[in-house]
Amino acid sequence: MPKRSEPVKLPKRVYEARVPALREELVQMQVALKHAPFSVVLIVAGDDASGKGEVVNLLNGWLDPRGVETHAFREPTDEERERPAMWRYWRTLPPRGRMAIYVGGWHADALALAPATRREQEAFDADVRRLARFERLLAADGTLIVKLWLHLTHEQQGERLRQLAEDPGTAWRVTDEDWQHFHDYRRRAALAERLRRLTHHAATPWHVVPAADPRARNLAVVTHLLERHAAHARVFGRARPVPRPRKLVPLRPRGLQLLKKLTLDQELSEADYAAKRDKWMGRLAHAVRAAADQGRSIVWVFEGWDAAGKGGAIRRLTSAIDARDYRVIPVAKPTDEEKAHHYLWRFWRHLPRAGRATIYDRSWYGRVLVERIEGFCTPAEWRRAFDELNDFEAQLADHGTIVLKFWLHLSPAEQLRRFRQREETPYKRHKINAEDWRNRRRWAAYEVAVGDMLALTSPPPARWQLIPADNKRFARVEILKRSCRQIAAVLG
Amino acid sequence: MPKRSEPVKLPKRVYEARVPALREELVQMQVALKHAPFSVVLIVAGDDASGKGEVVNLLNGWLDPRGVETHAFREPTDEERERPAMWRYWRTLPPRGRMAIYVGGWHADALALAPATRREQEAFDADVRRLARFERLLAADGTLIVKLWLHLTHEQQGERLRQLAEDPGTAWRVTDEDWQHFHDYRRRAALAERLRRLTHHAATPWHVVPAADPRARNLAVVTHLLERHAAHARVFGRARPVPRPRKLVPLRPRGLQLLKKLTLDQELSEADYAAKRDKWMGRLAHAVRAAADQGRSIVWVFEGWDAAGKGGAIRRLTSAIDARDYRVIPVAKPTDEEKAHHYLWRFWRHLPRAGRATIYDRSWYGRVLVERIEGFCTPAEWRRAFDELNDFEAQLADHGTIVLKFWLHLSPAEQLRRFRQREETPYKRHKINAEDWRNRRRWAAYEVAVGDMLALTSPPPARWQLIPADNKRFARVEILKRSCRQIAAVLG
Repeated sequence: MPKRSEPVKLPKRVYEARVPALREELVQMQVALKHAPFSVVLIVAGDDASGKGEVVNLLNGWLDPRGVETHAFREPTDEERERPAMWRYWRTLPPRGRMAIYVGGWHADALALAPATRREQEAFDADVRRLARFERLLAADGTLIVKLWLHLTHEQQGERLRQLAEDPGTAWRVTDEDWQHFHDYRRRAALAERLRRLTHHAATPWHVVPAADPRARNLAVVTHLLERHAAHARVFGRARPVPRPRKLVPLRPRGLQLLKKLTLDQELSEADYAAKRDKWMGRLAHAVRAAADQGRSIVWVFEGWDAAGKGGAIRRLTSAIDARDYRVIPVAKPTDEEKAHHYLWRFWRHLPRAGRATIYDRSWYGRVLVERIEGFCTPAEWRRAFDELNDFEAQLADHGTIVLKFWLHLSPAEQLRRFRQREETPYKRHKINAEDWRNRRRWAAYEVAVGDMLALTSPPPARWQLIPADNKRFARVEILKRSCRQIAAVLG
Repeated sequence: MPKRSEPVKLPKRVYEARVPALREELVQMQVALKHAPFSVVLIVAGDDASGKGEVVNLLNGWLDPRGVETHAFREPTDEERERPAMWRYWRTLPPRGRMAIYVGGWHADALALAPATRREQEAFDADVRRLARFERLLAADGTLIVKLWLHLTHEQQGERLRQLAEDPGTAWRVTDEDWQHFHDYRRRAALAERLRRLTHHAATPWHVVPAADPRARNLAVVTHLLERHAAHARVFGRARPVPRPRKLVPLRPRGLQLLKKLTLDQELSEADYAAKRDKWMGRLAHAVRAAADQGRSIVWVFEGWDAAGKGGAIRRLTSAIDARDYRVIPVAKPTDEEKAHHYLWRFWRHLPRAGRATIYDRSWYGRVLVERIEGFCTPAEWRRAFDELNDFEAQLADHGTIVLKFWLHLSPAEQLRRFRQREETPYKRHKINAEDWRNRRRWAAYEVAVGDMLALTSPPPARWQLIPADNKRFARVEILKRSCRQIAAVLG
């Protein structure tokens, strides 16, 4: 349960005596943060009239404004409304070494609701649990999340509103809505308490600060932030070495079995191919337009062995879509801005608007494939990624985005044939390098990782489609066909 | 004047014989582009019903979709409307090594106008000239800009519309608006011709492609793109070495004189400071709110000697603004995404929305200061930057953004005192490093560069404010005061 600081009334001279040292410590914190491998998210939420704005302005005055950014979520813009709910929070997240302050947090939208029926209550809980997962995701990545709730009792809130209303300099700040909220205090307080309970976890705790006395409130806020930072820096202050990966053992052998059972040498003649391709490209064009008419967006995910034919398959797909409506995102080495964020950030940033499509050529599944195999992340990181990836895609599906995931499967012999062919064809030589050969030698390890991925990240709204790809023609038609069918199934 | 290809009617077998080699060349072009130090912007504009969409879809089918992105500018989003007109084009620009296709180009909005009065005609010309400057700016940076105009005569357009309308599969594509445009052909053609003339320059030429015969049109488009790319790659294919900078000679001695005349040892006692600071912070708070009420945004630019007190001045400024309404952008080494774009891109991306402010702690003036002095760019580059920077700020001002630029000026003796103080104070030590000492040894060179900057980039809407900064208190009050006055002057 959230911890409450004891309410105190702080004399002015005590306050003023303590301020200089605290300010100094804040600046020191920022200096240390600059080179830290984590970011700081400070959430200043609280009851109405508890002084959230005052606290944030105070902090901004004491901090070096060059290392901190403040966000408040008002009406979403149209670009935000057209994407999953959490997109607008993701886009504001600070990179490692920096700090962001959120006035009202990302909790304000949920708190504006007044759930009355059981169904509304469930929707509220679902929204709030999504926020909790988001916070835990960030915390697990090393982000320091400090969540403050500035608290006023009903009596204190009334007192504070009267004070503000009586002073001509602040009277304009007290609105009719404030008084309505005041009369609705009990219901709102209970809702806020429920929100805090559902989003309170060991790594992302709420800290309730009594806010009746502004001086005591200010000190409590700053002290708490400094303490949390100091404790966090001790644990997360240095990038920790990743242990060398050991032999891969499947978590779920079922996935690997599925893969082994796939019949790879499918027949499809050149003539049959042309006819089928054209037929399914036509249907896909219709399906994509139908999805756009419903304001839905589409996300395609392509994963597969090197030389499995992802590029060719994507090309057939895009030929059926108006070029203005899709983007292909080739996923390779992250840029330094991407590296300074959570590993999912680089995928969130490219999510399509309503009626558009993004095609990811390789994707977030790199986390449980190459990063797991090569030891680019810790075992704890790739293990928890399965849940994180499922949750990410569930958010897309909840928003109405159609998620289509394809694994292009190849036999080692066919891959070898294609590698050789690439080496021998002048204009294909750029497509093959030493890394491809190295990956090939780790075939068995990749198979295990792919098997686990298939077994652990295939929930109904975003099921993996296994594509036998030894025959390129067959694979291309299959992808077109299954894309059509899945879009049709979602549109109903 | 734009060059026109000769109209031809191309037999199908000739077309099909030539396609494979062209497709091959297109892919080769993309492979080469991947490692090239420039990007490609392909604009496919043209008369109504000339097949712009067909051409783009064809190109997208032939190109590797992973290296190219297609944009079409429809209704601006609210995030776009709240920023200067060119913001939405800047945000789509491809990084070096990639290509973007623009259907209708950034010219579509201007062409949708129907200027009738002389004043409207002038506004049209002004819009179009802004586009021309944008294109030349990119071209000067090495971007390959290929601009195609697919042309139909009045007769051909009628013929094409009839064909489309008669075929049940394409009849839906012919709208009432198309027929209206057809009847308005002469006026629209004249307007387009004017647009092409005003945006036609040696480095950014229009190429008019007869579009009556789709096959000939397609070949002309691809051939032209390949030719332009080949010619461009010969010149811009390698990053060219920047010559070592020579001794700095002032371009405009007037600026340096201005600087030398400044009285640096201004008086302001601690007591006077507190009162004045509070007075002007209060006024600034009002001024900023008044600007926001008018939907205006504010851009502050801070430049000055190391240790001149930019950070402290910014802190006083931000204390007067609601933390939710400003961002401070500390400008240091560009990220790799920023380095892959035009040097102004990283500043465009942070422009504030309506009612918000961005404070740049150092800015685009780095181009004519540190980059000029250290030889990070060529003499041609920093020389043309003066115009580019003036144009950039003129665009901000045109949009209604208030631009406030401060140069904080310091005596060498005072700088030395502050450097020493920083080294002696434990919590300030992080603020000083070897680079600061090195810059200090180049004082004379910086003075010349600063002088030129002041003389060459101080047009009325974005005039430099010179702040004597030997006395920090005086400087801070002065910045608050001048900010208030300048905002008031703009708001009227």
